[in-house]
Amino acid sequence: MIFSSSLLENAVNEIAKLPGIGKKTALRLVLHLLKQEVPQVATLSDALIKMRTNIKFCSRCHNVADDTLCKICSNHSRRKNQLCVVESVRDVMAIEATQQFNGTYHVLGGIISPLDGIGPDKLNIASLLSRIVADEVVELIMALSPTIEGDTTTYYIAKKLSHLPLKITALSRGVAFGGELEYADELTLSRSFTNRLPIESLVNNSD
Amino acid sequence: MIFSSSLLENAVNEIAKLPGIGKKTALRLVLHLLKQEVPQVATLSDALIKMRTNIKFCSRCHNVADDTLCKICSNHSRRKNQLCVVESVRDVMAIEATQQFNGTYHVLGGIISPLDGIGPDKLNIASLLSRIVADEVVELIMALSPTIEGDTTTYYIAKKLSHLPLKITALSRGVAFGGELEYADELTLSRSFTNRLPIESLVNNSD
Repeated sequence: MIFSSSLLENAVNEIAKLPGIGKKTALRLVLHLLKQEVPQVATLSDALIKMRTNIKFCSRCHNVADDTLCKICSNHSRRKNQLCVVESVRDVMAIEATQQFNGTYHVLGGIISPLDGIGPDKLNIASLLSRIVADEVVELIMALSPTIEGDTTTYYIAKKLSHLPLKITALSRGVAFGGELEYADELTLSRSFTNRLPIESLVNNSD
Repeated sequence: MIFSSSLLENAVNEIAKLPGIGKKTALRLVLHLLKQEVPQVATLSDALIKMRTNIKFCSRCHNVADDTLCKICSNHSRRKNQLCVVESVRDVMAIEATQQFNGTYHVLGGIISPLDGIGPDKLNIASLLSRIVADEVVELIMALSPTIEGDTTTYYIAKKLSHLPLKITALSRGVAFGGELEYADELTLSRSFTNRLPIESLVNNSD
């Protein structure tokens, strides 16, 4: 790509560093910004750097927050004794969007993945254990990705907690709602068959 | 989308204003930035606002520039008497990428489009006419989009210049190189048939 302005080139190169954004898309975005008024571009530019420099992580659940505690942890109507363990901030948002959960979260900040050099010590597991004792948690919902790494992490945490009188559950797995059976992969379908549920659960779920 | 931090929400909303970027993509990009070090995010943020506030438009060809003249106009080895008229900065970059043109450009800043309220007076046509006289231009290459609006603009400019001893050409049209004939649209194929070229031109083009 040949640029007639180094300012333009610089902006395109910076935008193109973002994941999934190539040079052509970056150029399209920068030329769009060039057409906007200065205050609009300043708002975008400020929002990014302010987000990065001022954002905090909740001291209790490690979710992103504006203060010491995130909006969920500081909400007194959310149950402190029911914890949902997730990998990342994005998973918190995905579960919040379902509006099915009124407990609190614990963001691990990753999952155990020896190949990537991520061991249990790099995750927020110590703070999870102390929270479970301090808040007298009665149920721990393990909501990690249904992958080998996710399951390994779930088993690891469950084993660490085996001495505590605590109910540990995991998200149910099976064919996706609205999906066509013939397109479900074999493993999912076979597990879904083995773990088949009483018909009443379908009625409850469609409420 | 439910955010646990207003800083995060703000950044996502600003990114999602960019064309072709939805909320989900914006969240993915912002969470990526959150993982980067502060200086890296500052570099991106600075590049955007500096680009918008400091960029200039070439006083001769209206291309983006760092100075009064763009890199192309200030390059003495480029022919000043051969002008390529394009709609936008992006078209300059597309033609520059072909490395086939050693003249200079003139960026109209749009094309005549009555439906969008864009008349000839909103385009950089007056400066084009004065450049043609001042630089004793011998050839004007009209490289506008092959659409009704593009053709209208080409005809309008050609008519304005009909009194001058000037060669006016336009980009050739036809089936795209490497494309399959059966997928070419009827109009393109029929025009391409009518404007068929001597076989020698194929040999020259494949040099």
